[in-house]
Amino acid sequence: MAVYTEVSDDELARFLAGYELGRLLSYKGIAEGVENTNYLVHTSDGTFILTLYEKRVDVDDLPFFLGLMEHLSARGVNCPLPVRDRNGNVLNELAGRRAALITFLEGVWPKRPKVEQCFELGKALARMHIAGEGFRLRRANALGISGWRPLFDKFSARAEEICAGLDGMISEELRFLELAWPLNLPQGIIHADLFPDNVFFVDDRLSGIIDFYFACNDALAYDVAVCINAWCFDGASAFEPAKGAALLKGYDSVRPLSERERDAMPILARGAAMRFLLTRSYDWLNTPKDALVARKDPADYIRRLAFHQSVGSIADYAPQLIS
Amino acid sequence: MAVYTEVSDDELARFLAGYELGRLLSYKGIAEGVENTNYLVHTSDGTFILTLYEKRVDVDDLPFFLGLMEHLSARGVNCPLPVRDRNGNVLNELAGRRAALITFLEGVWPKRPKVEQCFELGKALARMHIAGEGFRLRRANALGISGWRPLFDKFSARAEEICAGLDGMISEELRFLELAWPLNLPQGIIHADLFPDNVFFVDDRLSGIIDFYFACNDALAYDVAVCINAWCFDGASAFEPAKGAALLKGYDSVRPLSERERDAMPILARGAAMRFLLTRSYDWLNTPKDALVARKDPADYIRRLAFHQSVGSIADYAPQLIS
Repeated sequence: MAVYTEVSDDELARFLAGYELGRLLSYKGIAEGVENTNYLVHTSDGTFILTLYEKRVDVDDLPFFLGLMEHLSARGVNCPLPVRDRNGNVLNELAGRRAALITFLEGVWPKRPKVEQCFELGKALARMHIAGEGFRLRRANALGISGWRPLFDKFSARAEEICAGLDGMISEELRFLELAWPLNLPQGIIHADLFPDNVFFVDDRLSGIIDFYFACNDALAYDVAVCINAWCFDGASAFEPAKGAALLKGYDSVRPLSERERDAMPILARGAAMRFLLTRSYDWLNTPKDALVARKDPADYIRRLAFHQSVGSIADYAPQLIS
Repeated sequence: MAVYTEVSDDELARFLAGYELGRLLSYKGIAEGVENTNYLVHTSDGTFILTLYEKRVDVDDLPFFLGLMEHLSARGVNCPLPVRDRNGNVLNELAGRRAALITFLEGVWPKRPKVEQCFELGKALARMHIAGEGFRLRRANALGISGWRPLFDKFSARAEEICAGLDGMISEELRFLELAWPLNLPQGIIHADLFPDNVFFVDDRLSGIIDFYFACNDALAYDVAVCINAWCFDGASAFEPAKGAALLKGYDSVRPLSERERDAMPILARGAAMRFLLTRSYDWLNTPKDALVARKDPADYIRRLAFHQSVGSIADYAPQLIS
């Protein structure tokens, strides 16, 4: 949530001269995104987001992310569209960083998603999965199941600083997930981080999806499981069945989950909770308390994981749909 | 340069319902201003800045600042205009803070002002001084000459941490300024902090002046002296005569400085350098090195002060005008 790289008016004017975007009217550094520096840019042609990619982003991944946004946008997904410069490039350099301009999407993200918004989110996720078909680039999920144990090894010795018993709990759960993880589910492009702050609404209409910087190839149903974790628990990490039902109903209305995907949902949800428990725990232990970026409490995902461990089948995520 | 107070979508929607500004389309926390939290807000009626006033601002001063912007705007100054809510109020509450909505001004501030921009700045400053006439509220300059010694007393014991000899240098200069400070100059509303980052340009045309949160009643020519310090030195703190000449020529073309104001300019410039030397020194000693807000080097103003001490008359600020 910070501007890591300052861009001067002269630098930006030189950069924009490479694009056909009219005159620069204003630009403001915005507190969006944890990884990169973002500016909101007004030109006489419209409003854009200028992103400068900071050190934590692997520049080799940028063609995948930017190409994916172009691919999805061309197939009707409301997502930012990278702007091509006069030479047809979407990636350039600015202030010593790789930089791209993307179109600005209006909309606000819901701090407390409503049931109807979960339904809209489910539909949009399914549409995105279908629109992702045919994208020519591939990217492995660095934070998928094969990445969890190496990440845990980096902090397991300090896990008890977060809460008593966490080291053993994660170890046991990882063993279970590695044994039982389903490998034969339909694959495709997933967003992998579709939290409410990456989904915009205007008047309860879903106006756009942003932040594709964790997107990768993985099981489509895993993306649904991430959204169950991200959208369907209240502030005290209690599951909200009406939201789970709405999300799954919305998704199914566009891309019906297969029997195998439905059977796998409880373990996929455990895996998704594990993924965020691991990254939040690592960040918790490695971010200074007074840092620019607010630390997110790992305990939220200990509670979610415990709920998923108690779930018998996908019906438990959507009781209204069954009854 | 940070968002200190987070505002949720629901909170903002409730707040905006009190105004006639159409539908909320989006809002982004922006990295503008050191004292307050600012959001850039798009509604179906236009673009606005939402400011939440943080602890460092005295809320009793807010009617002065907001009233001044209304007064100046009504008299043709391009500055933000506070938006009145349905009840006619410009000041409300949001997320536990006093909050105001003001109109958004397009423009970018010049990191390295050009000579022509100094000329435009001079004209705009003089216009603002004239437009300020008749404003019914008053506010003393808390960082005027009577405030300098109390501020120095807060850190003088540690002044040598900044550089050897600073304690004695400031003591001696303060004694001189207190003895020689001119008290009979034309008074009015001054901006008091008109640095380049508070002045916007579009295509070299001055498009607006922002950030009136240091504005107060004081000698008008002191505002010119602040601008000489803020606009007419290069990155190594060397005076740039062409910029000084342009600034003074621009100002004089709208509001010619009187003989007394011209005579006083060298000491006013010393005083302005002292004001920023004092606040920067205090902040330097009291801001953690890794804080959100970048510390500004006090040495820039030690060098400026030394230059002003060497100046014989206003002619030294604008040699081209004399020759």
